[in-house]
Amino acid sequence: MNPSARYVGDRTFVVEDTDAVPPGPGQVRIDVAYTGICGTDLHILHGAMDHRVRLPAVIGHEMSGRIAALGEGVTGHTVGDPVTVMPLNWCGNCPACAAGHTHICHRLDFVGIDSTGSMQRCWTVPAGILVPLPADLPLRHAALIEPTAVAVHDVRRSRLRAGEHAVVIGAGPVGLLIAKVAQTTGAAVTVLELDPHRRAVAADLGLPTVDPVALDPAAHVRDATGGAGADVVFEVSGSAAGVRTATELLAVRGRLVVVAIHPAPREVDLHRVFWRELEMIGVRVYQRDDYDEAVRLVHSGQVPAGRLISRIVPLEHVAAAFQALEAGGDVKVLVDCGGDT
Amino acid sequence: MNPSARYVGDRTFVVEDTDAVPPGPGQVRIDVAYTGICGTDLHILHGAMDHRVRLPAVIGHEMSGRIAALGEGVTGHTVGDPVTVMPLNWCGNCPACAAGHTHICHRLDFVGIDSTGSMQRCWTVPAGILVPLPADLPLRHAALIEPTAVAVHDVRRSRLRAGEHAVVIGAGPVGLLIAKVAQTTGAAVTVLELDPHRRAVAADLGLPTVDPVALDPAAHVRDATGGAGADVVFEVSGSAAGVRTATELLAVRGRLVVVAIHPAPREVDLHRVFWRELEMIGVRVYQRDDYDEAVRLVHSGQVPAGRLISRIVPLEHVAAAFQALEAGGDVKVLVDCGGDT
Repeated sequence: MNPSARYVGDRTFVVEDTDAVPPGPGQVRIDVAYTGICGTDLHILHGAMDHRVRLPAVIGHEMSGRIAALGEGVTGHTVGDPVTVMPLNWCGNCPACAAGHTHICHRLDFVGIDSTGSMQRCWTVPAGILVPLPADLPLRHAALIEPTAVAVHDVRRSRLRAGEHAVVIGAGPVGLLIAKVAQTTGAAVTVLELDPHRRAVAADLGLPTVDPVALDPAAHVRDATGGAGADVVFEVSGSAAGVRTATELLAVRGRLVVVAIHPAPREVDLHRVFWRELEMIGVRVYQRDDYDEAVRLVHSGQVPAGRLISRIVPLEHVAAAFQALEAGGDVKVLVDCGGDT
Repeated sequence: MNPSARYVGDRTFVVEDTDAVPPGPGQVRIDVAYTGICGTDLHILHGAMDHRVRLPAVIGHEMSGRIAALGEGVTGHTVGDPVTVMPLNWCGNCPACAAGHTHICHRLDFVGIDSTGSMQRCWTVPAGILVPLPADLPLRHAALIEPTAVAVHDVRRSRLRAGEHAVVIGAGPVGLLIAKVAQTTGAAVTVLELDPHRRAVAADLGLPTVDPVALDPAAHVRDATGGAGADVVFEVSGSAAGVRTATELLAVRGRLVVVAIHPAPREVDLHRVFWRELEMIGVRVYQRDDYDEAVRLVHSGQVPAGRLISRIVPLEHVAAAFQALEAGGDVKVLVDCGGDT
């Protein structure tokens, strides 16, 4: 018995029992405990990813669970081990893979988007994508390791270090995780967010927040940095205004990390890029060492995963989980897939 | 007797004799040999820099000459020494200076724009901006050290290395210098240029060129790089189309160096910045070690300064020199200031 949530198009999920897939050679079957809902999953529900998703699709890639069965030839894992996955399969042959940038493979299979994901009770995956978890890490917290790895990757690419000042524009789940990871470097962190509820969540997590409508962010950051400006800005809003604000805030040699996915080209003040020798840095998913650091930060509590989970919904109510997220007011919504026994 | 070319506004130069300024403490007087005309000087002539230039203004900052007189307390220099200058005076106190980025000082005095320049026979400057020259380097070649230092800075910031593929968009003097400096790293270099005359100049200098109208640059670069794309693109055209082409050409983790000064914000494909983890790097003038490398490259002939000089005009005909440059067809035009005796 494998209850699974299948996206059938037209903004609709159907939850039905399917046969569990037995693990083939090199594969494992996982009893899925929790699957977090990501912004990309919402885009899929909205039909924006129909060119990539094959219907009916089991989606989901922010997950935790336990190994339930091992396929032929799988070593180094034991049934019952707690795991998450790094949901990337790369080709190994394209120019990006050849250059060592496997996470940006030209033919990347993002598991849970391009292939079957974890919004089901039993999930069969290649053993190569497993990431082992500490035995004492609650599985509900572990479902946040994937988005934490995103944040770790983004902060690492920013080269942020102790004594610097970072600004995060946009306090959704990824913005909050970036801000918390940024704090672990010893940098000062300020969060800009228009929405009062999101600002309150950020403040509860110990993050200094600014309402960019009530307060001129550029003046605020100048004052906070002795006139220098921000060393790093993470643009997580996805808005044209966010990009404009980011270039205004940056210090000489400041770094703008483009985290949000901007669907349309954005106007960028290239004169200021020249005048202050700014850098813009693109970031996409994560590499394996980002996962190791994410496990460490969630396990130690430096990333307070439990406090970011605002709702846990049973698999049969997955549609309600998406509705709650769309309505706003939630931070991270988990789908309980039944494997946390 | 100090003939000097003074910009008096309204697109007009007046050449007249003025009194030479005797060097004060810490200053030197230089007999100016040559002053190159830079794109910024053209902007000044066009009135675009009137907010920075105090009229009547002696402009010019790409120069060579010999020390003619030493002010009180100047050591390490001798009358007759061949010199150029690094035309930057910084405050030493602002946040950028405090962070070690003196070339991007918040209150930078760019000598020859913000203060008196070298389009005159006798020029008095602080000894601190002098850069000594090898005795056997022709002074006309040395007038190209300043723009070569720009190119060295831009290539250094790009982190270009042997085995990589770089594309230079725009083959004006700075684009040509960047392409020649880029070749010295061992990288493959392709120049994109719309203008057939400029393409011919580039080809004469041993640079592979592409007409982006006749040939799809993205397909060309893909073919030349086994499908990867360019590791580095230098945007030297200043056009919206140049920015668009640059992001199209870049490989995964490619670097886009924004060399040209874009007067208006430009649309940038931030989705591709994310998808390929691209970097954008702002560059402004140079640092002292860029000058040392520029002297070495011009002296060794790796940067063929003599072949980039298309015209030398006496100081009294400075207006004709600007007209020639505006008419197109020239590469680098030098003003002979009379000190190469």
